Amino acid sequence: MNLTHFKIPGFLFSGISAGIKKNGKKDLGLIYSETPAHVAGLFTTNKVKAAPVLISMERIKEGSCQAIFVNSGNANACTGQRGIKDGHYISSLLSKELGIKPAHILLSSTGVIGVPLPVEKITRKIPELVRGLSPDGWTDVVEAIMTTDTQPKMEWESCRIRGKRVKLCGMAKGAGMICPNLATMLSFLVTDAHIEPLLLQRILREVVDLTYNRITIDGETSTNDTVLILANGRANHPLLNQMDKDAQIFKSMLLEVCQRLAHHIVRDGEGVTKVIEISIQGAKSDEEARRAAYGIAHSPLVKTAFFGEDVNWGRILSALGHSDISINQNRVDIFFDEVPVVKKGMGTGSRLEERASKVIKKKTFKLNVHLHQGKGRFSILTSDLSFDYVKINASYRS
Amino acid sequence: MNLTHFKIPGFLFSGISAGIKKNGKKDLGLIYSETPAHVAGLFTTNKVKAAPVLISMERIKEGSCQAIFVNSGNANACTGQRGIKDGHYISSLLSKELGIKPAHILLSSTGVIGVPLPVEKITRKIPELVRGLSPDGWTDVVEAIMTTDTQPKMEWESCRIRGKRVKLCGMAKGAGMICPNLATMLSFLVTDAHIEPLLLQRILREVVDLTYNRITIDGETSTNDTVLILANGRANHPLLNQMDKDAQIFKSMLLEVCQRLAHHIVRDGEGVTKVIEISIQGAKSDEEARRAAYGIAHSPLVKTAFFGEDVNWGRILSALGHSDISINQNRVDIFFDEVPVVKKGMGTGSRLEERASKVIKKKTFKLNVHLHQGKGRFSILTSDLSFDYVKINASYRS
Repeated sequence: MNLTHFKIPGFLFSGISAGIKKNGKKDLGLIYSETPAHVAGLFTTNKVKAAPVLISMERIKEGSCQAIFVNSGNANACTGQRGIKDGHYISSLLSKELGIKPAHILLSSTGVIGVPLPVEKITRKIPELVRGLSPDGWTDVVEAIMTTDTQPKMEWESCRIRGKRVKLCGMAKGAGMICPNLATMLSFLVTDAHIEPLLLQRILREVVDLTYNRITIDGETSTNDTVLILANGRANHPLLNQMDKDAQIFKSMLLEVCQRLAHHIVRDGEGVTKVIEISIQGAKSDEEARRAAYGIAHSPLVKTAFFGEDVNWGRILSALGHSDISINQNRVDIFFDEVPVVKKGMGTGSRLEERASKVIKKKTFKLNVHLHQGKGRFSILTSDLSFDYVKINASYRS
Repeated sequence: MNLTHFKIPGFLFSGISAGIKKNGKKDLGLIYSETPAHVAGLFTTNKVKAAPVLISMERIKEGSCQAIFVNSGNANACTGQRGIKDGHYISSLLSKELGIKPAHILLSSTGVIGVPLPVEKITRKIPELVRGLSPDGWTDVVEAIMTTDTQPKMEWESCRIRGKRVKLCGMAKGAGMICPNLATMLSFLVTDAHIEPLLLQRILREVVDLTYNRITIDGETSTNDTVLILANGRANHPLLNQMDKDAQIFKSMLLEVCQRLAHHIVRDGEGVTKVIEISIQGAKSDEEARRAAYGIAHSPLVKTAFFGEDVNWGRILSALGHSDISINQNRVDIFFDEVPVVKKGMGTGSRLEERASKVIKKKTFKLNVHLHQGKGRFSILTSDLSFDYVKINASYRS
């Protein structure tokens, strides 16, 4: 199905250029719900939080809102009181233009840190942004949130709840600073489901823990990470207010969409040439499995070996030993997809290593590690570390 | 003073090629003490430890030894029982050739992980290695331990203890996998000081904590890291056996040598174009200052910005916020050398940023961060992250 035929009743979208990005590409986006929608959100765990994050964290407490305003090209982070003031000023102008309460507007920004928001450029474009609202404007918003992303990222899905068709659309942007507990990533989701805000928040948290919190490109967590979901209830099924079968159906749909978006984010990470699922089994606990997975995923030596398509399993063992987990080096098994390259801590020989070297040449593969210490397991998606990552990030501001 | 005129009585050195390295460069080294010397050592904290590390950890317990045998080109790591057996076999042959106990031989290896040691190649060269021993062979051993190092690293110093001249020579190899708690680094030190083994161990630990444990290139800790010091007592001063003034004099000399070697290691790190001292002040505790320093030093975004000579202080603030420390973003000050670029969490403007952009163009500079949370402080040496780091590590084995 084409996205343009997948409209969600009651939601309008708009995306335009305000000249914040130097290249003239779209950098302002607006998501608008014709009626107040229930809202849930998750924000960066970085202790340094951008102004729009601080403002939105306050505003979602009420449980409903009507608009998400987003800009790219400037993060409005590390801008002190001025950043907060700028955010309030923009939402007050926008609220007048939309005829809704300022407190019903959520803000989100992404881009360079530490530079004051070009308020003038933004505010003079607000009327045009609002005029542009349309049920088809979804892709314009997706474009407006892109920074170093090379591909727009959007996904949609539907399900049936009590005989009613319920729809969900989601978008996301990557592409560096991608790490657990939200990355420099923004993701906005809208649905016509009818769901109580606290339940929506709980489901969103559970889904994000299984998706956006399980991807890592460079171990960085940005100041601006934001995931927001609006649910306007227009699907007209009875209100979901507890974690029952119907809520599970909704959750599965959300999980599906976020899983796909998470995969797109890693795939399109800065300089990424490969997506690797790192799956740990047999750890002493799930928590130790998690640490082991990130230990491997954040090792520059492992990541450069992936990039070089080198089945350098010694670096994987070394990264495991360097992680803060229980390990007996003589018990570890390592597989590239199904090919065992390490059994009981030792290499399995050149024939199998050759087979594994075919696996590592693929764009996507699985690295399976069995620690034989217990029943803990965890898996994450990560990427390689390439020349282009360095190139993109050495010259990001210039 | 030239190293060749700086001989330490009673120590002999030899370094030759056994063809383990593909390029035919020196890859076997031997340090020999004519009489049993007191010994102290520190080894990798990685839970996956190479066979020579496991063997040497056992052997230094006795407190004295007479030889250090080292090879490069192969780490003898992740080689299971066979690796241990190979190590024992080599030391038994060497002990016969030298006429000393096998237990008095320490082993050390560096190079590719997971490939069995080419024992045959090594053992047939042992007679030649022993024949080559000479008081001037120091630089041959330094060459024999180099892997991706572009420069040999050695330092020497002397001091006076109770009227006697005491000498110390040290060597080290880098160059990737450089992180706290020993890096893929080997460092061997020899001295004619007369010092009790437990005191020697204590002083070595304290000095390493201030030097080799305060450098980081890529946050990796190898399976083979080893620091060894031999003290043969030939300087003939009274035995140092407690932490008194004389022991302090010795410690200062050791600190000086290890500091210089640590700096050489970072300077010659894989792909390194800059050495940066990250100094944290005003943290809640020294431990929080340490975490903040490593949080910045291990951030790929900060490191690529250093490489790109971009005064991207937002990334520094973000890395601080991502560290597990107490922070109030509105209190943080950041300086490049003496130039303030952030005061109370906000940029100080383009004029100062321009001055800082001259600092960041230097080969070595200081990044000073004041958190204004308490009295904790810590500083480390680190490097940038360049194309060449990726290049070297993407193709290390091929």
